[in-house]
Amino acid sequence: MKRRSVLKVVLTSALIAALSVPAVATADSAKTVIEGLPMAARAAPVPAGVSPELAGLIESRQVGTHAETPSSTKQWLALQAEFDAASLQGVARLLEMTGAQFAIENVAGVTTYRVTPTTIDPRWADTVFVHVHGGAFVFNGGEAAMAEAIWMAHGLGVEVVSVDYRRPPLHPFPAATDDVIAVWQQVIKDHDPAKVAMFGTSAGGNLALSTVLQLRDMGTPLPGAIMAGTPAVDLAQTSDSWITLQGLDPLGAREGVIEGTFDIYADGTDRTDPRLSPIYANLGNMPPTVLLTGTRDLLLSDTVRMHRALRAAGVAADLHVYDGQSHGDYMAGFFVNAPETHDAWRELNTFFDLHLE
Amino acid sequence: MKRRSVLKVVLTSALIAALSVPAVATADSAKTVIEGLPMAARAAPVPAGVSPELAGLIESRQVGTHAETPSSTKQWLALQAEFDAASLQGVARLLEMTGAQFAIENVAGVTTYRVTPTTIDPRWADTVFVHVHGGAFVFNGGEAAMAEAIWMAHGLGVEVVSVDYRRPPLHPFPAATDDVIAVWQQVIKDHDPAKVAMFGTSAGGNLALSTVLQLRDMGTPLPGAIMAGTPAVDLAQTSDSWITLQGLDPLGAREGVIEGTFDIYADGTDRTDPRLSPIYANLGNMPPTVLLTGTRDLLLSDTVRMHRALRAAGVAADLHVYDGQSHGDYMAGFFVNAPETHDAWRELNTFFDLHLE
Repeated sequence: MKRRSVLKVVLTSALIAALSVPAVATADSAKTVIEGLPMAARAAPVPAGVSPELAGLIESRQVGTHAETPSSTKQWLALQAEFDAASLQGVARLLEMTGAQFAIENVAGVTTYRVTPTTIDPRWADTVFVHVHGGAFVFNGGEAAMAEAIWMAHGLGVEVVSVDYRRPPLHPFPAATDDVIAVWQQVIKDHDPAKVAMFGTSAGGNLALSTVLQLRDMGTPLPGAIMAGTPAVDLAQTSDSWITLQGLDPLGAREGVIEGTFDIYADGTDRTDPRLSPIYANLGNMPPTVLLTGTRDLLLSDTVRMHRALRAAGVAADLHVYDGQSHGDYMAGFFVNAPETHDAWRELNTFFDLHLE
Repeated sequence: MKRRSVLKVVLTSALIAALSVPAVATADSAKTVIEGLPMAARAAPVPAGVSPELAGLIESRQVGTHAETPSSTKQWLALQAEFDAASLQGVARLLEMTGAQFAIENVAGVTTYRVTPTTIDPRWADTVFVHVHGGAFVFNGGEAAMAEAIWMAHGLGVEVVSVDYRRPPLHPFPAATDDVIAVWQQVIKDHDPAKVAMFGTSAGGNLALSTVLQLRDMGTPLPGAIMAGTPAVDLAQTSDSWITLQGLDPLGAREGVIEGTFDIYADGTDRTDPRLSPIYANLGNMPPTVLLTGTRDLLLSDTVRMHRALRAAGVAADLHVYDGQSHGDYMAGFFVNAPETHDAWRELNTFFDLHLE
């Protein structure tokens, strides 16, 4: 046996020290503006690790500035209507592409859309998935709610009930989760909850998690599994990737419209309330949860933070990160038939097959 | 039932269109320099999602410039000696912190270090893990090899054999994996291979994967599981996060010394050779593999690409991404007793417990 001792230790990490030679800081001027590590301006070419189909999508991408942030209820309603109408075009295209059908159903007083794909996978024949749409809590209402529901229904061959929950500015927190809870309680009258998945992306990921947390606290039977796609889980603090990846994601920035949507959604409630920001919740006994994100996703940090918190609480949580993808691009790839989208469907099928009874 | 049709579709993604209003491109001048999405200069504050201990580490961080790239064998050897000596200080500190002991053993003609922690976990009492050190293929030889071996031995309570493989500039590819293969063949004479994990970080992750791929092709019994920490899996192409996250990671940049190490390691062999770049390999029948990385890791993209490729090949591969961590920081946190490091040990214990027989 041999043992060494040292008199002087200068390294914070042997590995890192071995790979780089620290130099004096060079960005004192930048540090006077914002404290932090300086990132120089650059251009980010199409990532090496993406399919030609996704590369084409990224190449055509323009990361624009946001609309002006509304300052009145009237302005919010106008922007909401504009966005909903634009999203509805995408929904119409998805219906045409897939041949999926939908029916409008009033469930417990809440408008829902039952989306039926052309083919049902036998393993999902006796169940339905519950969809909570994204759109920063404010956008994608009415039939525009269905985009991700169609994506899931078509990709997995499963019937989906999409919840057209009430939204700000007229209906702030907790109207949205109240509506999802009401629909859930109705759905489980006809279905074994352990065979039902709840899913959503972005604000929809937040709402799916928040709804299930509340169901857990109410003692209501829970979904057998959750998909939280690039979920906005921290409305109180700005996670790192909102800053580090800005410029790469068509989502734009948190400042402005998105921060405004968080504001009118919270409507004065403390944003660290776990019903608003699931990252602050006690996550014990949550159902198995699969999370999706990308390396150019402004919500990469929110997503990985949630994954870690779920795992630390003992939840069976899986994480899939797609190289070069921005916010929700696993769905955007649907429009160009990207292999990454088929990969996401495969992972979701595998996960739900494992965890839904 | 209700169905809509559209005459004109302008959206590439309903979700994204709902959250941002595309504007005209503003960065024509940047595009004349490098084709790609423009990222503006910024400063990245300490991430919201990290522990106070890791925050302290990040706050004290200076992302420096690299040493000059050597242009002769003599210069490479000098830089190698300098780096090895620096890393050895870290190893000495880790030995002091942990009380771990080590013995130098010649195994099949290869120098190895058998690292024994103060306490062995009963579940790992009858096995040993094989460690392949990192350091860009060129650095961290001699006793400096042991840093991660000590980290693993102490964190999991397992005996570790760390391979001091031959390195460039004197011994390019395939000397390193030849050495690891030789050690492996000796180790499995005394241990059930299904109970042995092989692990490494950075270049060590590459070498662990490459070694096991070659063992598979040779028909040699494989390790029961692999840990590939932030592995450099693509020496041919520059994955996206090398560019997008530059400035945040003490690793610095790929250009310069690191690209130079890849060059003297490959020594003229085509870098898309899967023995050099495992991302290009057929990955069928690889053992369960756990991958670790962080949102500020220049090898984030390499890591998630490998995770996806393994999953697509049907391998049981798990991914853990730590918010705000740069290259190998799950180990760097060891020096400040960060909760993230304990979390990594917990995940590794769970993974190996599940997959090692």
